[in-house]
Amino acid sequence: MPDPVTLYVCTTCRAEGDASEPRAGARLLSSLSEALAERPAAGIRIEPVECLSVCKRACTVAVASPGRWTYVYGDLDPATSAATILDGIGLYADTPDGIVPWKARPQAFKSGVVARVPPLPQPMPEAAE
Amino acid sequence: MPDPVTLYVCTTCRAEGDASEPRAGARLLSSLSEALAERPAAGIRIEPVECLSVCKRACTVAVASPGRWTYVYGDLDPATSAATILDGIGLYADTPDGIVPWKARPQAFKSGVVARVPPLPQPMPEAAE
Repeated sequence: MPDPVTLYVCTTCRAEGDASEPRAGARLLSSLSEALAERPAAGIRIEPVECLSVCKRACTVAVASPGRWTYVYGDLDPATSAATILDGIGLYADTPDGIVPWKARPQAFKSGVVARVPPLPQPMPEAAE
Repeated sequence: MPDPVTLYVCTTCRAEGDASEPRAGARLLSSLSEALAERPAAGIRIEPVECLSVCKRACTVAVASPGRWTYVYGDLDPATSAATILDGIGLYADTPDGIVPWKARPQAFKSGVVARVPPLPQPMPEAAE
């Protein structure tokens, strides 16, 4: 059983010049939740977040998992990117460290990457002798 | 004993239009290491990183700690920002969740914030009954 992968979705993000409700971030959350429901074995947990502090590059998501790098992506289209995001995170989940080879990454992840952060050191396994 | 705080410093960052060596990121690493040596009780661990994927906003750092939000900052001056960064991370280390009130944050953190990511769920404590 691989470690679970958490997909954080900013629900506060607004598309530029778009004052309508629900906000673009909330619409992305809905489309991701629907798309994930069709992939029950994906091992991905979606968590809504009020702000990822990437307000100039809406919509934004982050993906994190114990022992793997964390990635933050922006410039995502709420109407069209859900499947692409889940595909990219599927590749992430298949790696031991979260680093997907550049060529294999979806274009939206290549152009939309905002930042990445190394994994925190893992706690020592119990009864290591 | 509070949880340790890890300060990731991108050593690959170049200041715009600056082809000199060592690179701006490496210079920031040096100035941070020197400044930290004068604060032996700070509880901060500096870890050099080859790339935080924030190449357009050099210099960049990230701060992370178990159970706390992760923050990424850019637009940092390698010559002048070391003490400010350590001050800001000291405030971070004094919080339970890593969220420093906006007004208390250094100006460089307010204007330079690139992204933030929630803490991953913590493992259950042992023998919790």
